[in-house]
Amino acid sequence: AQSSVQLFGTVDLAARYVKNGDVKRTDLASNGNSTSRLGVRGVEDLGGGLKAGFWLEAAVNPDSGTADSSRFWGRRSTVSLMGDFGEVRLGRDKMPTQLAFEAYDVFGATGIADINTTYRVPSGITVAANSRADNAVQYFLPGNLNGVYGSLAVAAGEGVTGGKYMGGRLGWASGPVDVSVAYGQNEITDSDDFKRFVVGGSYDFQVVKVLANYQETKFQDQKDRHMTVGASVPFGVGEFKASYSKIDGRGGAIADRDADQFAIGYVHNLSKRTALYTTYAYIKNDGTANYVVADNGATSMTGRKSQGVDVGIRHSF
Amino acid sequence: AQSSVQLFGTVDLAARYVKNGDVKRTDLASNGNSTSRLGVRGVEDLGGGLKAGFWLEAAVNPDSGTADSSRFWGRRSTVSLMGDFGEVRLGRDKMPTQLAFEAYDVFGATGIADINTTYRVPSGITVAANSRADNAVQYFLPGNLNGVYGSLAVAAGEGVTGGKYMGGRLGWASGPVDVSVAYGQNEITDSDDFKRFVVGGSYDFQVVKVLANYQETKFQDQKDRHMTVGASVPFGVGEFKASYSKIDGRGGAIADRDADQFAIGYVHNLSKRTALYTTYAYIKNDGTANYVVADNGATSMTGRKSQGVDVGIRHSF
Amino acid sequence: AQSSVQLFGTVDLAARYVKNGDVKRTDLASNGNSTSRLGVRGVEDLGGGLKAGFWLEAAVNPDSGTADSSRFWGRRSTVSLMGDFGEVRLGRDKMPTQLAFEAYDVFGATGIADINTTYRVPSGITVAANSRADNAVQYFLPGNLNGVYGSLAVAAGEGVTGGKYMGGRLGWASGPVDVSVAYGQNEITDSDDFKRFVVGGSYDFQVVKVLANYQETKFQDQKDRHMTVGASVPFGVGEFKASYSKIDGRGGAIADRDADQFAIGYVHNLSKRTALYTTYAYIKNDGTANYVVADNGATSMTGRKSQGVDVGIRHSF
Repeated sequence: AQSSVQLFGTVDLAARYVKNGDVKRTDLASNGNSTSRLGVRGVEDLGGGLKAGFWLEAAVNPDSGTADSSRFWGRRSTVSLMGDFGEVRLGRDKMPTQLAFEAYDVFGATGIADINTTYRVPSGITVAANSRADNAVQYFLPGNLNGVYGSLAVAAGEGVTGGKYMGGRLGWASGPVDVSVAYGQNEITDSDDFKRFVVGGSYDFQVVKVLANYQETKFQDQKDRHMTVGASVPFGVGEFKASYSKIDGRGGAIADRDADQFAIGYVHNLSKRTALYTTYAYIKNDGTANYVVADNGATSMTGRKSQGVDVGIRHSF
Repeated sequence: AQSSVQLFGTVDLAARYVKNGDVKRTDLASNGNSTSRLGVRGVEDLGGGLKAGFWLEAAVNPDSGTADSSRFWGRRSTVSLMGDFGEVRLGRDKMPTQLAFEAYDVFGATGIADINTTYRVPSGITVAANSRADNAVQYFLPGNLNGVYGSLAVAAGEGVTGGKYMGGRLGWASGPVDVSVAYGQNEITDSDDFKRFVVGGSYDFQVVKVLANYQETKFQDQKDRHMTVGASVPFGVGEFKASYSKIDGRGGAIADRDADQFAIGYVHNLSKRTALYTTYAYIKNDGTANYVVADNGATSMTGRKSQGVDVGIRHSF
Repeated sequence: AQSSVQLFGTVDLAARYVKNGDVKRTDLASNGNSTSRLGVRGVEDLGGGLKAGFWLEAAVNPDSGTADSSRFWGRRSTVSLMGDFGEVRLGRDKMPTQLAFEAYDVFGATGIADINTTYRVPSGITVAANSRADNAVQYFLPGNLNGVYGSLAVAAGEGVTGGKYMGGRLGWASGPVDVSVAYGQNEITDSDDFKRFVVGGSYDFQVVKVLANYQETKFQDQKDRHMTVGASVPFGVGEFKASYSKIDGRGGAIADRDADQFAIGYVHNLSKRTALYTTYAYIKNDGTANYVVADNGATSMTGRKSQGVDVGIRHSF
């Protein structure tokens, strides 16, 4: 059947100034507005409403020309069978809980304002299948359910700590509304799972779009909450954005680990594919929290402030 | 001259259950029906019957998104000059003895039924240029010799043990018949070579295609024989396959290292490019043999049984 | 806006014989005539004379199928904004001083005759941003300045020794003439820079093109000079080339480190994209100099001769 292989990607670079505690550094940084990547994908029409597709997507760090040294195609490497029933997707991919968490970040879960910068798995464990999972089978609902969407995923652990994952997301998007809820758990030991719950939504009032999400993670007695509200305001070919996150960590040996994250930004679209942007981000760490907007070589950030500003260009193809 | 650069590849993933001895594991595995890969190739017409071509082909493991970390373009990286005289090909490529060995495996030398799972170089040595060789010059006969085909290859060792290779394959394919013989040797020490001899053939009776091959390898007093018979039966858009191999190891410190390998499978073609498949494979190890259909973390497999079953999808582009 | 993504590259392989001191080796080598690579690039027209572009270019070693293991896209990974004002380019790229040094090497700065084989940074230091720089911002003059061309580059060190670079190149190319001058410096310590100055030019007399360049590098009391003269003579579809370099090292603990480099070659163009070539190169080391035309495993080359010859094919796409 008909072939349609597509080469696609993004190169995003910004001049960036980061001050973590007293340490200052100016550098050139990748991924301020969108994650730099290179991918190959295609869909084949098999007839009778059935389609097959593949997707290989590699991270690229254009500031230094590096690729992902541990997983070259680490962003996604999947094969799919699609039809009226929805989509069955096999391979490495982003998991439903992470998709739900990132969906309502007005900064697109990248750069110095990325809500992921203030999200960490509980201390003392590694969760291999946290944002993405190897060896996953994922089922997506079809697109004709009156705005209802969602997916269910399981990942085979294959002996890797936190690699065994099971989760799902259910949402509804219609007109200005988009809401979803997601839950997932990773096996850490035979008796203990890492659990993650996310609920979020957005409403587009045209003059302003507001977004909010709430996440709860749990492992043994460690219970962390991450709340974000954001807004974007279109302005001609541009867009103003602002976001605030509150991180609330409870339980565990280091109970006092709260933080506040605040960011504003402006994106100036030169075309659908190319944009200039600037972002300012700020994180205030309490107690033992040591989040940073970006690593700049500073150590011992416990309880200290981190802030940064960037000016960059994002080009997609 | 005219350019014709082509992006091509395969993504093949299967749910797989493997039991090695008492160890059981269910995982998602790459390459059950065809080896996952991504490549770029092209041919330029130079006029006067002369052509130049290149071929870069990378292994991909879509279950975890990894590439080949030691040789990114490890499947093939060549430049060729082609004409009435045949083809002269330079670079890294599969060697004639390996091509002959794999040619008559009804399972395409991949997955849990791969005949390579029961083929190993003699214990105590490494043979760098075993299946593929770096630094190779290969000459292929032209395509107009009434079905006679073949190649001669030499690889410069460049100081790597077993990297120096010299071998060739001669075959005849016409109508239902395909037979070939191959011989190759690798320099291990100044006085000792690793030698490999393969003869095989297939005959397509239409209702059934039968395949057989025989391989002998030799290093000092270690002499191993690998015999395979296989058959495939087309069935509408599908194909049933079965294969049996007998491994017979003689000489060396661990003389008793025989094994039997048996596999059946079914491939359901959704199109020329896309197929669903299932395979069952079984290996019986005698003495010190410890072959497995696939690694599942089990250790000390000496003399034990290995079996597995997979259900997967292969999509080429 | 309109997309124009292009896949491009080169595969260049040669049979090569190298004799360093008494050590001889025949191998298959990459990059005899042009550096093997694979790249993706594109330009988007943004309207109003403005353009955006990206360029990702990876080194390939087709003799063994390897990629650059430290920086996959190490040859270039940039995003650009272009217009009447010129070009602003962000990312990893070749620096102006290196561009100027290589511009007048008749052997294209690759293979056994590469002038880079006799260029080294002063002993005792590493210069991360020597030929290429990570984290660079480069500005190029527009193309409508009556033949005047040039660029200015700065690279953020980001804590890497010699990574902080600042340099520029100014040239004039018109009809048969091309001349340029370049200067750059890398911060090695707070008080000491590595400095590099290059001036060169070429004149095309049609029956012969002559090229010359002069380079001076300086770090503390080490001062090295590299002088090259070259010529190319077109001959039907072919081209004869010859080059001579004189290396003169002064100061530092090992003052006597001069060398002479001589090379001749012939390139036979089968098309614009494909060529056969042969090269002979010779290096004479004085004192403690230990340059080689190519590594062949020989050690202690101090004061010894190195020579090599290759016969190869280069195919671009």
